[in-house]
Amino acid sequence: MKGKPLASIVSAGLSKFGKIDGLYARELFAEAAKEAYERCPNLDPKRDIKALFIGHMGESYEHQGHTGATAADWAGLLHVPATRTEAACCSSGVALKAAVYAVASGLCDVVMVGGVEKMTHRSTPEVTEFLAMASDFPFEQWHGITFPGLFALMATAHMHKYGTTEKQMAQIAVKNHYNGSLNPKAQMQKEITLEQALSSRVVAWPLKLYDCSLITDGASCLILTKPELAKRYTDAPVHIIGSGQASDTIGMYEREEFTSIRAAKLAAKTAYEMAGLTPSDIDVAEVHDCFTIAEIIAYEDLGFCRPGEGGRMAENGETALKGRIPVNTSGGLKAKGHPVGATGTAQAYEIYLQLTGQAEKRQVADAEIGLTHNVGGSGATATVHIYRRG
Amino acid sequence: MKGKPLASIVSAGLSKFGKIDGLYARELFAEAAKEAYERCPNLDPKRDIKALFIGHMGESYEHQGHTGATAADWAGLLHVPATRTEAACCSSGVALKAAVYAVASGLCDVVMVGGVEKMTHRSTPEVTEFLAMASDFPFEQWHGITFPGLFALMATAHMHKYGTTEKQMAQIAVKNHYNGSLNPKAQMQKEITLEQALSSRVVAWPLKLYDCSLITDGASCLILTKPELAKRYTDAPVHIIGSGQASDTIGMYEREEFTSIRAAKLAAKTAYEMAGLTPSDIDVAEVHDCFTIAEIIAYEDLGFCRPGEGGRMAENGETALKGRIPVNTSGGLKAKGHPVGATGTAQAYEIYLQLTGQAEKRQVADAEIGLTHNVGGSGATATVHIYRRG
Repeated sequence: MKGKPLASIVSAGLSKFGKIDGLYARELFAEAAKEAYERCPNLDPKRDIKALFIGHMGESYEHQGHTGATAADWAGLLHVPATRTEAACCSSGVALKAAVYAVASGLCDVVMVGGVEKMTHRSTPEVTEFLAMASDFPFEQWHGITFPGLFALMATAHMHKYGTTEKQMAQIAVKNHYNGSLNPKAQMQKEITLEQALSSRVVAWPLKLYDCSLITDGASCLILTKPELAKRYTDAPVHIIGSGQASDTIGMYEREEFTSIRAAKLAAKTAYEMAGLTPSDIDVAEVHDCFTIAEIIAYEDLGFCRPGEGGRMAENGETALKGRIPVNTSGGLKAKGHPVGATGTAQAYEIYLQLTGQAEKRQVADAEIGLTHNVGGSGATATVHIYRRG
Repeated sequence: MKGKPLASIVSAGLSKFGKIDGLYARELFAEAAKEAYERCPNLDPKRDIKALFIGHMGESYEHQGHTGATAADWAGLLHVPATRTEAACCSSGVALKAAVYAVASGLCDVVMVGGVEKMTHRSTPEVTEFLAMASDFPFEQWHGITFPGLFALMATAHMHKYGTTEKQMAQIAVKNHYNGSLNPKAQMQKEITLEQALSSRVVAWPLKLYDCSLITDGASCLILTKPELAKRYTDAPVHIIGSGQASDTIGMYEREEFTSIRAAKLAAKTAYEMAGLTPSDIDVAEVHDCFTIAEIIAYEDLGFCRPGEGGRMAENGETALKGRIPVNTSGGLKAKGHPVGATGTAQAYEIYLQLTGQAEKRQVADAEIGLTHNVGGSGATATVHIYRRG
């Protein structure tokens, strides 16, 4: 049945995002879990939660794998089945999909899903190297290209094919920094001007410093239940009504085009079909703006505009907080921050706040339908989820 | 309903296990997938398979994460939703649990699940370091203890509490090497004597070289369907009727005892309850013999004998190929090999062969009920699955 809830979010938590010194990833996750528990006094975590899925991208940052068991223990869920998922920056997007399966199976009444990454204690070259493991070793990493370079290839292809401009990309940064300035958990809570963005130093042309998302510590989580049990835990659930995921070649060199992300288009198609909705039904969205060009491509891949019109959509302010369809009200990866494993469920956290009227200064009026779009690597994995106010 | 199939295995594949030079992990996985496809001519992989879950422990071996998408592509499943799971040496055990949820959800008719690891191209100190990421960084790794040391602590505790002997542990090695000699895909296909095992060099007392499992390259996979669809793909399905998973503290220093693995006991309890069976119903089992002491503890944790009797059970030959309950007919991690991410579904592959009468020289007569027991790290994660011949 179209639009039938697959699972319901009854609570959510987010740690402060930023440079958090002196805490391990497990402690960041505990901070997110604590918020989710406090928001949901009817939940007895140890008794009720039957599984934990946690997105975590890199074992290298803390020389620590086996994140599922560790996160479960620190979140007060000792002995609960706990599974780490990894799909690069889509690690908690795929965790959410796995958690939806667990709830929909009927085998688990309540499931926790989240993500975490601790990154800022490593040097920038180290972080760049660890992130590169999400690209192809023999045909990308080995030749020295890293993620700013891969997304710069997308940006130049988009500029060439559609006339997209550096200014349009900079406008994404300005918008997301403005939104971030309204989010007390964002890493960057300061506005920037178009001139600042355009004159920032080049990282991989045409991408400049303000076109790039941040290196961030943080964690996020959601509590999911079967829809019929949601009212046991909250008066204001948010239902997941569409859950799409797809994959693509890991190497960009094998793709037919650089101006869209096919896995995201396929994931969106699945999610819209499950939800019985079209892009015009979406009231608010969080999309994967790891670089500003990625947000422009996301508008197109999600059907918010036609291919090639994403740049103009940004320029016209259609996705601003008061625009036709506000995108990245949280500040996005660009300003809220991008603790890679945590990002997918952090996007869902923002949509949860928006659809339950808890987004404070960045609240979108009367938002009923939300969407999240999470991308791994240069697009070898993507998930799209659609949410409805309960 | 007890004993109701959760999902059905309709095909399975395993790469050759061993030191496989010149292939990437993705190519090993393709080899396993090819066998599964050839075994199941009614399956059109690209059309039918709706999701892939793949256990992969270490991004460090090949400087390559994002294993889901890559494995999907190399297995002919481009664009199929693909998720890597990681729980140390239980990485594909938890993948199997996630895949069971996906099938049981009703959202996927056919799911592929597997695991992979490419290890032998790295030096032994590197492999030891990468494996150590499955233990606690601040309180274990940092102080220099590695996995042989952690399991040696279990062995000495077991010897002290129950009188378990080095000879009993060596008998596990002798049994598993004998079984491996009958398995054409095993890394070690040679028998050893008790004297050889007992006189091999000490790695971490009381564990000697022949008490330790192998460093191995390999991959494994299963094709799962909804039970009601199984006959579309095979006349001889194997039903999964119990699926248990649990977690524990990552650090051994926080556990109440070293002589059993609590997560495994909890996972077994869940699996037996779901299956409506008791230990005496099991005809054949694959257990996680990363070290010989681990197999002895597994007998006890799974209820094959009482606590403390595992050593004598090995000594009496009760778990030999012709014994009361044959264990590790494949050769186990000890002789078949232990490509860590692949092990969980490789165990299920052996049970699939046994329950469908395809285990050739190591066939257990008339096996109807099988069990797999997969452990991550020193026991922070464990899964137990129970299977019934269809």
